[in-house]
Amino acid sequence: MPRLILVRHGQSQWNLENRFTGWWDVDLTPLGEDEARAAGTLLKEKGIAPTVAFTSLQTRAIRTLHLALEAAGLLWIPETKDWRLNERHYGGLTGLNKAETAARHGEDQVKIWRRSFDTPPPVLEKGSEFDLSTDARYAGIDVPQTESLKDTIARVLPYYEGSIVPHLKAGADVLVSAHGNSLRALVKHLSNISDDEITGLEIPTGQPIVYELSDDLAVLDRYYLSER
Amino acid sequence: MPRLILVRHGQSQWNLENRFTGWWDVDLTPLGEDEARAAGTLLKEKGIAPTVAFTSLQTRAIRTLHLALEAAGLLWIPETKDWRLNERHYGGLTGLNKAETAARHGEDQVKIWRRSFDTPPPVLEKGSEFDLSTDARYAGIDVPQTESLKDTIARVLPYYEGSIVPHLKAGADVLVSAHGNSLRALVKHLSNISDDEITGLEIPTGQPIVYELSDDLAVLDRYYLSER
Repeated sequence: MPRLILVRHGQSQWNLENRFTGWWDVDLTPLGEDEARAAGTLLKEKGIAPTVAFTSLQTRAIRTLHLALEAAGLLWIPETKDWRLNERHYGGLTGLNKAETAARHGEDQVKIWRRSFDTPPPVLEKGSEFDLSTDARYAGIDVPQTESLKDTIARVLPYYEGSIVPHLKAGADVLVSAHGNSLRALVKHLSNISDDEITGLEIPTGQPIVYELSDDLAVLDRYYLSER
Repeated sequence: MPRLILVRHGQSQWNLENRFTGWWDVDLTPLGEDEARAAGTLLKEKGIAPTVAFTSLQTRAIRTLHLALEAAGLLWIPETKDWRLNERHYGGLTGLNKAETAARHGEDQVKIWRRSFDTPPPVLEKGSEFDLSTDARYAGIDVPQTESLKDTIARVLPYYEGSIVPHLKAGADVLVSAHGNSLRALVKHLSNISDDEITGLEIPTGQPIVYELSDDLAVLDRYYLSER
């Protein structure tokens, strides 16, 4: 029976600096690299060998995937990178330190931006230093100027249904290396979590989450692999 | 106009130990990793940004690709891994030290195995420690027991025509990270090298070779990128 294994990328430089990152392409820290390798070692120890992998277009998720697969001895499995697995776009908050932002806009406002289901942050101005709309990596893609979690889900789930589900239906074990909010989209869908609750759900970095599925993709079991 | 960029993987542990490697999955040495990064840095410096990448199912070529793309800031481009880009299968010579093999079988015989166009080495016995016919990575693939260079070409070229050429015809710059003999197959084809001459052509590790092509894939120019 198929399994879906979700891994949030290891610590990035801006996780460490407590800055809003979103689509900005920040690399892993040495700790983040270790987390990624540990995720792969855990897969190997537990005898879980995904046969196909998906990740975003962002370096921190791609490198997490590669370091995990290398540690698992699975660097050879096919992998697909897609922008629809990217982190939520944090709009005009991109690059800002979270504490400074709270000091400027108030804790309550920042909490709304971070924790509201459908209120996006202010837009990222075109031409700002964090504007990626002309980045070659996003050629042909209508790069968002900001996203709520609801917006993020609205691009993640159709991608999941169209590109990942066919592998699961064929019985594959699928590994997805992605981001806090793109993984929230999948967890919300699979675990049937309400709009209100999903915004508060923290997905730990580098911890494989396993969904064991029936042939018609009903969730039979879910767990952190480290706890099995 | 399209460009095809070929990179042979950096030094592997068995390159260093002077052992026949073939399909055995030997990792890069630290020097090999540096060579891979240098290849990516060179691409970046010369302003060559491949938009799609291909590699084999072997760790040393995959890691060369990843390290090069990372150094080039292109880790996000799509990549496809396929066994048909694997190194030539060295049959029963796999794992043997080249000097020892020459001492046992004679220099002349080893030269024939290494440099003949169409004489394969002895087969690798089923069940030998280097037999990969039951490796999960090659599930569904009829793993060869040995290959001549001619045999290698016979699987590389159809893959090139079917999977790489369409990207070139669409105008893409394509990066291929592969092996001495799978790259010989491509170089022989593109540069029109005879059967006799191709066996003596050495392709240096970690040195991007650029083929500039016309829209109908005639070779307009070819060069080592380090020399431009």
